[in-house]
Amino acid sequence: MSTLQPIRVTVWGEFRHEKNNPEVTAIYPDGIHEAIAAFLRPNADFSVRTAWLDQAENGLPQDLLDQTDVLVWWGHMAHREVSDEVVARAKSRVLEGMGLIALHSGHYAKIFKALMGTTCSLKWRESTDKERLWNIAPAHPITQGIGEYFEIPAEEMYGEPFGIPTPDELLFISWFTGGEVFRSGATWQRGHGRVFYFRPGHETYPTYYHPQVQQVITNAVRWARPTVCIPDACPNAAALEPLPEDPAAAVRPTQGFR
Amino acid sequence: MSTLQPIRVTVWGEFRHEKNNPEVTAIYPDGIHEAIAAFLRPNADFSVRTAWLDQAENGLPQDLLDQTDVLVWWGHMAHREVSDEVVARAKSRVLEGMGLIALHSGHYAKIFKALMGTTCSLKWRESTDKERLWNIAPAHPITQGIGEYFEIPAEEMYGEPFGIPTPDELLFISWFTGGEVFRSGATWQRGHGRVFYFRPGHETYPTYYHPQVQQVITNAVRWARPTVCIPDACPNAAALEPLPEDPAAAVRPTQGFR
Amino acid sequence: MSTLQPIRVTVWGEFRHEKNNPEVTAIYPDGIHEAIAAFLRPNADFSVRTAWLDQAENGLPQDLLDQTDVLVWWGHMAHREVSDEVVARAKSRVLEGMGLIALHSGHYAKIFKALMGTTCSLKWRESTDKERLWNIAPAHPITQGIGEYFEIPAEEMYGEPFGIPTPDELLFISWFTGGEVFRSGATWQRGHGRVFYFRPGHETYPTYYHPQVQQVITNAVRWARPTVCIPDACPNAAALEPLPEDPAAAVRPTQGFR
Amino acid sequence: MSTLQPIRVTVWGEFRHEKNNPEVTAIYPDGIHEAIAAFLRPNADFSVRTAWLDQAENGLPQDLLDQTDVLVWWGHMAHREVSDEVVARAKSRVLEGMGLIALHSGHYAKIFKALMGTTCSLKWRESTDKERLWNIAPAHPITQGIGEYFEIPAEEMYGEPFGIPTPDELLFISWFTGGEVFRSGATWQRGHGRVFYFRPGHETYPTYYHPQVQQVITNAVRWARPTVCIPDACPNAAALEPLPEDPAAAVRPTQGFR
Repeated sequence: MSTLQPIRVTVWGEFRHEKNNPEVTAIYPDGIHEAIAAFLRPNADFSVRTAWLDQAENGLPQDLLDQTDVLVWWGHMAHREVSDEVVARAKSRVLEGMGLIALHSGHYAKIFKALMGTTCSLKWRESTDKERLWNIAPAHPITQGIGEYFEIPAEEMYGEPFGIPTPDELLFISWFTGGEVFRSGATWQRGHGRVFYFRPGHETYPTYYHPQVQQVITNAVRWARPTVCIPDACPNAAALEPLPEDPAAAVRPTQGFR
Repeated sequence: MSTLQPIRVTVWGEFRHEKNNPEVTAIYPDGIHEAIAAFLRPNADFSVRTAWLDQAENGLPQDLLDQTDVLVWWGHMAHREVSDEVVARAKSRVLEGMGLIALHSGHYAKIFKALMGTTCSLKWRESTDKERLWNIAPAHPITQGIGEYFEIPAEEMYGEPFGIPTPDELLFISWFTGGEVFRSGATWQRGHGRVFYFRPGHETYPTYYHPQVQQVITNAVRWARPTVCIPDACPNAAALEPLPEDPAAAVRPTQGFR
Repeated sequence: MSTLQPIRVTVWGEFRHEKNNPEVTAIYPDGIHEAIAAFLRPNADFSVRTAWLDQAENGLPQDLLDQTDVLVWWGHMAHREVSDEVVARAKSRVLEGMGLIALHSGHYAKIFKALMGTTCSLKWRESTDKERLWNIAPAHPITQGIGEYFEIPAEEMYGEPFGIPTPDELLFISWFTGGEVFRSGATWQRGHGRVFYFRPGHETYPTYYHPQVQQVITNAVRWARPTVCIPDACPNAAALEPLPEDPAAAVRPTQGFR
Repeated sequence: MSTLQPIRVTVWGEFRHEKNNPEVTAIYPDGIHEAIAAFLRPNADFSVRTAWLDQAENGLPQDLLDQTDVLVWWGHMAHREVSDEVVARAKSRVLEGMGLIALHSGHYAKIFKALMGTTCSLKWRESTDKERLWNIAPAHPITQGIGEYFEIPAEEMYGEPFGIPTPDELLFISWFTGGEVFRSGATWQRGHGRVFYFRPGHETYPTYYHPQVQQVITNAVRWARPTVCIPDACPNAAALEPLPEDPAAAVRPTQGFR
């Protein structure tokens, strides 16, 4: 295992609230993406870059995506400004093997919705709820080092029903003070890529400084590492066994099965 | 149950091969969509219409979709000509409850790919393979009246790997003479709608006259009938239980969890 | 549909708390099984019987099971007293097509554990929690007529992690006052039978008089109705296609693949 | 990763055919279990032992199981001779975290059936079929190094329907000369343990000398390594949030919801 290349992580941030809202700037002065990158970088097996919306090509040119093993995504107010071309290339990369970790309001990111095929809608409330995340899959690689549950003292509420396809694996269910529940950690295989959605992370709370939130995202990066890179193909294939030579009897149109 | 309204079925066909290729015209003189509609119509609990690509709005204006319970889809050479707007409205209808049955090369229809979120690619061969469909879910409503397996004497081959998300339910696996296998009948829930993919139906073979193919599609229409119609919403929700009044301690930015 | 035979429902109760604990007797004087049967019986499409632990063969002789379409199960303090033979015959019936609805502490019934293959353990507290069940699958037949959520003013708490295999369909997630969550309604296909687990129903609370609890169980009976009855078999099968005559080259022991 | 302990593998064999049937003895003179152990042992990260039916406690005393990370199982003619006590302790170990790899006729082993909860029955033919295993999950850890498909020149046929619960992950589908298909590689999570079923391996063919069969089993051992060891518990749990003090209104028996 010692010869493994580092996992090339790109943390993508929208980086708007952090510039426009002093309350958010105070918490994340360098942006949410940099706060996430900061706790990932000390891992010797990670190689971490950041990118953001207002860069050229929304920060995600083809060559950067080609050199990304796991893409971490935080967006909220400007999902529509991510170009369809960038979304298409990121989706192709996931389908050929790249991992994707969608955080919090990333449930509504174009890339996440395109991979799920559903509305990804939910119930929400900007409030003072406590969130308690119950670990319902303690043997999963993403939940290692997390106890039975952990609490975030104040968070935005997201509630069911959550408009996602049935997850391949459900890892966390959240309890909120205000009376709601939410499937707050879930995985899906899409093509050859692994996708993880993780709920916490409203911009007005210091959620990404929470040790267990950091542990989950760190674990998820390792879990989402690609095993293969298989570009899309729809090949015409020769037969491997002898075929019947004359199926003419079958093709007599309307009498075939009568 | 006697007061149930009929299931409003719209059978959509591309209707191009049938006009351009005499071999296909000979088998399906009125189009594949009409051949399918013909075996659905005798069911007293169905109300069946047809639509096709070259009609206005690709045959699928909003009001027709709004009055469709189950949409049956056959397309092949002209997937790209279906407008993105029509695809978006059909997808919305599935997510709010409409059933969708995608047939054969409909694996590559924009509507199917948008709901799956994956490539939907596969291996293929226009040939003389016999296809034997094994029924691996004999208790499922869609496989009622189908025996342990059935055979189609000559069909195009579709082989694995098939670029789909893991099906919610796998109903049929095909064996082909040439040595391949394929997940040829599978279901997915997408939003509030039920989706069924069914492989057989190459245009140069009289597959839609096959009694068991007809039985499967007929069963699938009943299975895909909507139970609800719930339009997309992402509601702001008031708390159902008392909230803490002052979570100020939680929001002290970089010291929150240190 | 008018010619359908009624669904033959057997409601099985342990019927011990109701005799031994005056608090329970006051709520369910005729037993929990009779309270459940009472709200099922008015449905014209149901034919309802009851059975209980202290009858001969634990109330479930072979002929009664053979004439049961859907078995509803409530047990708690005496799971071990159900004989292994009765469990084996009930399990065989589920695998060949009979529906099973396991209620509340039925998570620990031998029949449920044998079908799940797991511990079925959970966290619990006999207390005064309010339970709010969120409906996360509003298009499912079992949740029809149930709103976005419903509340039970006081119930025993069951909390995650719940030691079950990943459900085929997750229908309800519960919120409890005390801070826990639970997957409180879930389905599994086992063989040709449909299994539904539904959490509410502690014996010291009048839960089975709750209108939405009654609605869910009533819906579940219809959903669990058998489509087939296919006894277990492991058949020796003749080939459907010609086989190679002499694979001798393959069977030369240790040189086969070297 | 260099500090990881070796994976402790126990390969269990029935070891009867190899003594009683000269044809089998010629292929597997030391037993099938030893042939499997032989290709696992050269892996530096594995520590491999063998065990067999006719040893004391069927070769699986508690302390050996406690020191086993992954149990590989081959049995066929004597499933019933494995004691229920041994099966119960092996099942407990899987549920608390141990991996299990069930091979070929191990589909009918008590331990596998107990974990699945179903009949595990299938269609079969001792014959000269070629088996071609299609890899339908090329990104899965178990299929690494396996191409698009691989062939076994002669094998016993196993055909659908296969009486298993829907796999969490379906990895291989087999094509047989005689016209059948089979889900020949599949995974399930059971409790905290990972379970893999892999079809090939009839005793009269040298299947366990096949390089890709060996690769799959080797990969599966690494995949099935435990992440945790969590013994079964069903804990009484104190509330994490304040509870209502007097829910008396709720417990007025038959008037509760009227």
